Amino acid sequence: MINRQLLHPESIVVVGGSNNVHKPGGALVRNLISGGYKGTLRIINPKEDEVQGIKVFHDAGELPPTDLAVLVIPAKMCPESVETLARDKGVRAFIIISAGFGEETKEGAELEQRIVDTCDKYGAALIGPNCIGLMNSWHHSVFTKPIPTLHDKGVDFISGSGATAVFILESAVIKGLPFNSVWSVGNSKQIGIEDVLQYMDENFDPERDSHIKLLYIENINNPDKLLFHAGSLIRKGCRIAAIKAGSSESGSRAASSHTGAIASSDSAVEALFRKAGIVRCFSREELTTVGCIFTLPPLTGRNFAIVTHAGGPGVMLTDALSKGGLNVPKIEGPEADELKSLLFPGSSVSNPIDILATGTPEHLSLAIDYCEHKFKGIDAIFVIFGTPGLVQLYEAYDVLHKKILECKKPIFPILPCLHTAGPEVAEFLSKGHVNFSDEVTLATALTQVMKTPRPASPEIELFGVDVPRIREVIGRIEGNGYISPEHVHELLECAGIPMVPELVSADKAELEAFAEKVGYPVVAKVVGPVHKSDVGGVALNIKTSSQLEYEFDRMMQIEGAKGVMVQKMLRGRELFIGAKYEPRFGHIVLCGLGGIFVEVLKDVSSGLAPLSYDEAYSMIRSLRAYKIIRGTRGQKGVNEKKYAEIIVRLSTLLRFATEIKEMDINPLLADENDIVAVDARMRIEK
Amino acid sequence: MINRQLLHPESIVVVGGSNNVHKPGGALVRNLISGGYKGTLRIINPKEDEVQGIKVFHDAGELPPTDLAVLVIPAKMCPESVETLARDKGVRAFIIISAGFGEETKEGAELEQRIVDTCDKYGAALIGPNCIGLMNSWHHSVFTKPIPTLHDKGVDFISGSGATAVFILESAVIKGLPFNSVWSVGNSKQIGIEDVLQYMDENFDPERDSHIKLLYIENINNPDKLLFHAGSLIRKGCRIAAIKAGSSESGSRAASSHTGAIASSDSAVEALFRKAGIVRCFSREELTTVGCIFTLPPLTGRNFAIVTHAGGPGVMLTDALSKGGLNVPKIEGPEADELKSLLFPGSSVSNPIDILATGTPEHLSLAIDYCEHKFKGIDAIFVIFGTPGLVQLYEAYDVLHKKILECKKPIFPILPCLHTAGPEVAEFLSKGHVNFSDEVTLATALTQVMKTPRPASPEIELFGVDVPRIREVIGRIEGNGYISPEHVHELLECAGIPMVPELVSADKAELEAFAEKVGYPVVAKVVGPVHKSDVGGVALNIKTSSQLEYEFDRMMQIEGAKGVMVQKMLRGRELFIGAKYEPRFGHIVLCGLGGIFVEVLKDVSSGLAPLSYDEAYSMIRSLRAYKIIRGTRGQKGVNEKKYAEIIVRLSTLLRFATEIKEMDINPLLADENDIVAVDARMRIEK
Repeated sequence: MINRQLLHPESIVVVGGSNNVHKPGGALVRNLISGGYKGTLRIINPKEDEVQGIKVFHDAGELPPTDLAVLVIPAKMCPESVETLARDKGVRAFIIISAGFGEETKEGAELEQRIVDTCDKYGAALIGPNCIGLMNSWHHSVFTKPIPTLHDKGVDFISGSGATAVFILESAVIKGLPFNSVWSVGNSKQIGIEDVLQYMDENFDPERDSHIKLLYIENINNPDKLLFHAGSLIRKGCRIAAIKAGSSESGSRAASSHTGAIASSDSAVEALFRKAGIVRCFSREELTTVGCIFTLPPLTGRNFAIVTHAGGPGVMLTDALSKGGLNVPKIEGPEADELKSLLFPGSSVSNPIDILATGTPEHLSLAIDYCEHKFKGIDAIFVIFGTPGLVQLYEAYDVLHKKILECKKPIFPILPCLHTAGPEVAEFLSKGHVNFSDEVTLATALTQVMKTPRPASPEIELFGVDVPRIREVIGRIEGNGYISPEHVHELLECAGIPMVPELVSADKAELEAFAEKVGYPVVAKVVGPVHKSDVGGVALNIKTSSQLEYEFDRMMQIEGAKGVMVQKMLRGRELFIGAKYEPRFGHIVLCGLGGIFVEVLKDVSSGLAPLSYDEAYSMIRSLRAYKIIRGTRGQKGVNEKKYAEIIVRLSTLLRFATEIKEMDINPLLADENDIVAVDARMRIEK
Repeated sequence: MINRQLLHPESIVVVGGSNNVHKPGGALVRNLISGGYKGTLRIINPKEDEVQGIKVFHDAGELPPTDLAVLVIPAKMCPESVETLARDKGVRAFIIISAGFGEETKEGAELEQRIVDTCDKYGAALIGPNCIGLMNSWHHSVFTKPIPTLHDKGVDFISGSGATAVFILESAVIKGLPFNSVWSVGNSKQIGIEDVLQYMDENFDPERDSHIKLLYIENINNPDKLLFHAGSLIRKGCRIAAIKAGSSESGSRAASSHTGAIASSDSAVEALFRKAGIVRCFSREELTTVGCIFTLPPLTGRNFAIVTHAGGPGVMLTDALSKGGLNVPKIEGPEADELKSLLFPGSSVSNPIDILATGTPEHLSLAIDYCEHKFKGIDAIFVIFGTPGLVQLYEAYDVLHKKILECKKPIFPILPCLHTAGPEVAEFLSKGHVNFSDEVTLATALTQVMKTPRPASPEIELFGVDVPRIREVIGRIEGNGYISPEHVHELLECAGIPMVPELVSADKAELEAFAEKVGYPVVAKVVGPVHKSDVGGVALNIKTSSQLEYEFDRMMQIEGAKGVMVQKMLRGRELFIGAKYEPRFGHIVLCGLGGIFVEVLKDVSSGLAPLSYDEAYSMIRSLRAYKIIRGTRGQKGVNEKKYAEIIVRLSTLLRFATEIKEMDINPLLADENDIVAVDARMRIEK
């Protein structure tokens, strides 16, 4: 329950504030003072009379009513302190820096719970425990350094780890990235990352609030909440990037089926981020680079001009952009010739625009102006400008400063000489700009931004899916485990997914009649054993009734055989759809071409159910083998629209049947007209 | 012709040296003086009597004999100056900083040529023109900043671009990377990157010389020379990394055939680097990070311990290492328990070893000692150590300093707090260490290092290849273009590559007799048209002689038909081998599974002919679909040894038949026993 007292306290008490700035209690007071906190700052410390020039209360009893308390005292003293302050002093927000709670011991977890109960009882906000604190432009209630530049349009940064937050800030301050708020949620006992996002979403004011959110996440406690509020904020115009650390552990998880092995929990994170429209980052460097990109006007296209006074970095940047599917289009024509005539001989304007090492600030200004006003089809401008140490760069960087303010197209400053031109870069940053010191790191981060889709529609596609009947079928199934082909058939039917004509029976004559009806050739499969082909339980291309009789008799001898399924034999391209239920996330749906594409090449893409048509198309089109689906080299493709439809319908079915923990349809047979499911398995846990 | 006068001049004259340190002539003199040059420094400048405290000669005539001349005068004055100095003053090494030569105009190219001719005539070394110069620990003959730390075991850095060299040095000094020499070769008129490598290779002294070379390359003028000397240096114990800028332009190159389109010139670079054992980098940041890795002892395995006092970066590092195929093995057992008991409660030792934010320098020391001495199966140690700003890190970094000197296992220091702990990091670097400020950037660079193979054997595998006959067949072929199937057949036979039995003829009876002999079914293909299937010139599965007669008559009607080829029809897995001649590089050989694997999935790997068996196996095993070749899920694989043999033999054939500009064998049919070529095309240009 984030409140005014937490965000904008009129008064703060630091419980455990001290004179020793090498300890958290002292450093926190120092940060509050040097951060220019304008409310009333109070301190409780039984052993001191004055701390850093501030009069000290020896005990909570003496304290006047206060808005926010920051606790920097031993864990076991916290519950009582919180109780006293909330009950007697009207404190309605707590930041607990202290460690030694649930992250360490069972006793600690109990202490923690008492604090949460107290806070909930009094309607008080609680950040922590075990965190570095919270800072915004009103109050710097953190004990750590560095303190970044803070202003309203800076980044809102929420971190699940305090030390990592510090290191991310280190990476940010060097780039000039400004912040609006920094939240270290620690053990997240009352307020976690998802709750902060919820607050920001529900109270969003596009004029007042920052539009940039960066997250460092170790555990996604509430995926639905994260998805809902992140997606909602992005739809309101925000831009969000996040690291989810721990992507590799998932690799070791065992899973009972094929689909299970592919749909690791990391693919759940991946699918969640894509669905929400969150840019996924994997390092501190990447997160802060994306943060800097977010401070610039949003890109309206993929065509970039590069203005440089050094050839090499321009070429490396071009390489990296091209690798990421972004363009550095050739610039030519009379206006290009005109610019060339205004630069030194030997300059190149064909993009990269190389104004040469001897290029002046005026040349830089001209080149930017031509990109902004004259050259067609340019969406943004990169400027690479360093120095071999002969002259200072104040003038050139002042040109860059003015052009960034003036131009409508985003300008990405790449200033590589952090050592030789340190003071000039610092002055440039002090004017409110960011700097990307390595052009390839920038291009890689930009690629990651550009390939992140818009948030998916939160609506569920219900058309053609019979939800009441799904619930009725699920209700009827007894026990857990793989369900019978008839039930699979029924559930797919409820979702309107077409299936190959088939009949399951233990009656030979009935099966023969069915085969006559649908027409030979047919396929026969034993019913009962799970891994049918391993026990010789599949016979393809049965052309006559006598062949069918023979196979029926043979299969009924297989151990566990309960009957035989006869299907019409079809031909077509094999497709695959699978799904796995990931606790808390819901169903991860996978699609791909069947056979070796899934099994050997692992060419599958994933999405989080329920899926929209846009998401289904995006999944299909991100397959490496997509060309085969589209059709290639004279070979006809498959009906992509129907494939998307089946993916969407299946995802809706799963949304209403969370008892299905694992399933696959493998294969579906597809041609340019139709797609039908041939074989499917579902495992249920109620 | 690199010589003593260039590397260790007893005397240097700066022609155009001045007092204005904002111009190259002044900055260069300043750098020589502040670099502590111990030889005799002279200056020629008609307008000054003294420059930066040094007596000036107004004209070359007055100059005593001098070893090295650095020219910082207008381009058109250079040729005469060089002539005078070489002829009259015994100057045997020139560094020409001046620009305005071949890089700008035709006249400039002529001036340049006159200089080269003079230098060659007098046996003088020439660096440039159009460069920032050359620096080593003896003389800093560059006009630029920054000047990195220089010592004997630092990096030898050779750059094809001066401005880029400056920016790479910027990225290096921040990391503490030391240099032994920096070469800016400019227009490379006499000495290019390859020549510097050749000199280093031919004069290599493992005791005296640096073992680390970094290259920034824009054009590979002599791929053979680069390959030979880079490979040779690496075999002598050196480690080389390089950027080749301009990898994306290649994408736009048109090529007449399928193979041509895949084997772009960038894949030639890729293949060359792999063959030489050069670690390929794509950014300044990556190159300098790899350079820093090279300063540490070489890795002997892929198992890493992570010692950290912050959880998050340890997790992100683990993720990034796992993604790159490197391991962070679980540490457990009595010795792990012992370490845990020595750390603060709540520490983790299971790897990452988290000594907690409160962990002391002693804890750091202990954790490193356990990784070095007690924990089995650890090849290297990462140490992540920053600060939230409470205490200074001098003590902790001193522990790290001592452990790096003491331990046999490489220790990678990750010190993230460049801002808050700036002075501590600087002191650490001043003791001769490097720093990786971002753990994921390090892991990515390390992955690149670990996946670079050892240099390939320079020997050509001749066994089973009939070179004289290859030359005889090539000599016999008239004209350019696609050659006849008979000639293709003959050439493959010379290389000992097995082919499906086939006969080309325009005589129907002869073909029928052949089909009877090899046995039906057979395949018939028209001979003449290049794209046979597009004109209906292929018929599969011909089972009778009357069917063959019908197809023969039909095919002979196709425009351009010269005859019909009949082959035995075989079954098996389709494989592909192709090659393309890349000017200056030689043949790029591609391999992969045929059909959609090549055409849609672009799953091919490449190597530079001639290929060793090791290289061929490495190519095959780096295919995404390698599992299919090895055999998977009950499906038999194909004979990998024979596939490698065919790749090696074909590459030898191509080495002796550079007239073959493009070729492919598509498909080869393979099973677990045999591989035979079914169809092949070759295009020759003499």
